[in-house]
Amino acid sequence: MNLSFDVTALGNAIVDVIAPAQETFLADENLAKGAMTLIDEGGAARLYARMAPGIEASGGSAANTVAGIASLGGRAAFIGKVATDALGEVFAHDIRAIGARFETPPLAGGPATARCLVNVTPDGQRTMCTFLGASTQLTPADVSAPLIEGAAVVYLEGYLFDAPQARRAFAKAAALAHGAGRAIALTLCDPFVVERHGEALRGFIESQVDILFANEAEITALFRASDFEAAARAISSCVSIAALTRGADGSVVIGMGERRSIAAAAVDKVVDTTGAGDQYAAGFLFALARGAPLDTCGRLGSAAASEVISHYGPRPQTSLRALATGMIEQ
Amino acid sequence: MNLSFDVTALGNAIVDVIAPAQETFLADENLAKGAMTLIDEGGAARLYARMAPGIEASGGSAANTVAGIASLGGRAAFIGKVATDALGEVFAHDIRAIGARFETPPLAGGPATARCLVNVTPDGQRTMCTFLGASTQLTPADVSAPLIEGAAVVYLEGYLFDAPQARRAFAKAAALAHGAGRAIALTLCDPFVVERHGEALRGFIESQVDILFANEAEITALFRASDFEAAARAISSCVSIAALTRGADGSVVIGMGERRSIAAAAVDKVVDTTGAGDQYAAGFLFALARGAPLDTCGRLGSAAASEVISHYGPRPQTSLRALATGMIEQ
Repeated sequence: MNLSFDVTALGNAIVDVIAPAQETFLADENLAKGAMTLIDEGGAARLYARMAPGIEASGGSAANTVAGIASLGGRAAFIGKVATDALGEVFAHDIRAIGARFETPPLAGGPATARCLVNVTPDGQRTMCTFLGASTQLTPADVSAPLIEGAAVVYLEGYLFDAPQARRAFAKAAALAHGAGRAIALTLCDPFVVERHGEALRGFIESQVDILFANEAEITALFRASDFEAAARAISSCVSIAALTRGADGSVVIGMGERRSIAAAAVDKVVDTTGAGDQYAAGFLFALARGAPLDTCGRLGSAAASEVISHYGPRPQTSLRALATGMIEQ
Repeated sequence: MNLSFDVTALGNAIVDVIAPAQETFLADENLAKGAMTLIDEGGAARLYARMAPGIEASGGSAANTVAGIASLGGRAAFIGKVATDALGEVFAHDIRAIGARFETPPLAGGPATARCLVNVTPDGQRTMCTFLGASTQLTPADVSAPLIEGAAVVYLEGYLFDAPQARRAFAKAAALAHGAGRAIALTLCDPFVVERHGEALRGFIESQVDILFANEAEITALFRASDFEAAARAISSCVSIAALTRGADGSVVIGMGERRSIAAAAVDKVVDTTGAGDQYAAGFLFALARGAPLDTCGRLGSAAASEVISHYGPRPQTSLRALATGMIEQ
């Protein structure tokens, strides 16, 4: 089987605005530390006016994963919606420049390109407020059959569950993928996403998802479980593979009749945890698409995550190819 | 004398797009390493399409200096032109968020906010291509008398010599400043600026400039001198103070009847030299505005420069206040 892509992902097309912040700033602004809160354009303008000087960098959860897979040497494509504006050009440039395919037509005459205001506290934790703008305008028409059918894994970003049109795009992608014998992966993204869409999300996972990514808060929220172990048992009967991340405690990978605990890779200093889960998924999915065993998938995920948390910004700053050496046949 | 500002600066209002590049990329694109080349909007689009993924960060030479002065604990104002677009909002946000005054009205219906495409090679050298856009539309009407007359030093960015309207803004600023008994400082910015405007620039320096900042290439170009020593002698008879930077060799400060050599501050690893000259000027001018002796001005300049070259981006990533402790009374 000669596929065009290791992974094709559907997600929000977002530019991050990343600035340092003190703990008191989060309190003053009533921001839930570590979470992602949706805000409107006016709210974004008001919060931005109070933030410290920052940098802008392309982001978006699944888009970060696609960038990571490309950086690892994989072939990846992204489907997501920007507007015809300067930040949209930045997003399109960056994802293409790292080597990924991106051909979703930009939205003209609608809301601006999405932006995520990321406040990074001195402990490296990121607290995000997102104005989704154009990214919610992704429709089934943007789901191109060759990109879906030509990928070993189709990866869906849970954040898009908030947008009705995009949810229909998920359904189309899942139908195309399964029709062609491909796997569907989903990342839950955020405990609030799970709370907002619990039942619909569980239904979608049971019927359509082969590979699930979640952190502890998300997986326990999904099953309203009392603890991580109960949630891990519940998910193992729903999907073929579950990759459950636990921050500094590494991850637990369940599937193919086994359960493995994977240690987090060592990091000198955690600067900014933005993108940690996204890069874990990048390493994991690239290894999986190349036929590696599950514990190798988990270890490559941990290695990719450790690079991204050692600097500001949600995407790799150096080529990740070397990380995969010895783990993946290239 | 109770002034409102230590420094008010006039300069290009630019957002930098910073990406890593190999030496071969510079050769392929015919880029003069270490220099700043002016490009038009089409040229910017073509070069950007070939650059690696990057980050966006507010830049502009004098604006970086203003940000540095604010970070050091000084009071600074900036006069420069952005457009009414997303990158213009980024620029305005960042310079205000660091604590500087910025009230120049943005340009509507004209060219876009200026951007500088910065390719950083593995040795940390930056090669810049700038689309000036709205920033050249700075006019004398933007030069607000209270900002000029209320500043100990008025700092002019040599790059603006390329724009006829902005050059008239310089003349207005110089007249206002000298009328109020303030000092005028100028940075030459780039040897190509000096080549383009040699005679006019020398005339302006002799008649209007009290404090000159230049690196070796710029000062030798200004006097068509055979070597640094000849150029240093020539400038010492033109201005009250000359601060001549020499990269890793530190700087030479001439004025008040003395000449001092200042060592460069130690840096573990040079990551990106973007902004080194700008932050040297920040440290120097802040110390000068607070009445410090010349060698202290040079040492605070070196200290501020060493912070900025140890990371990507042209502005301080941490508060520089501590650098000035013990050097400057606050």
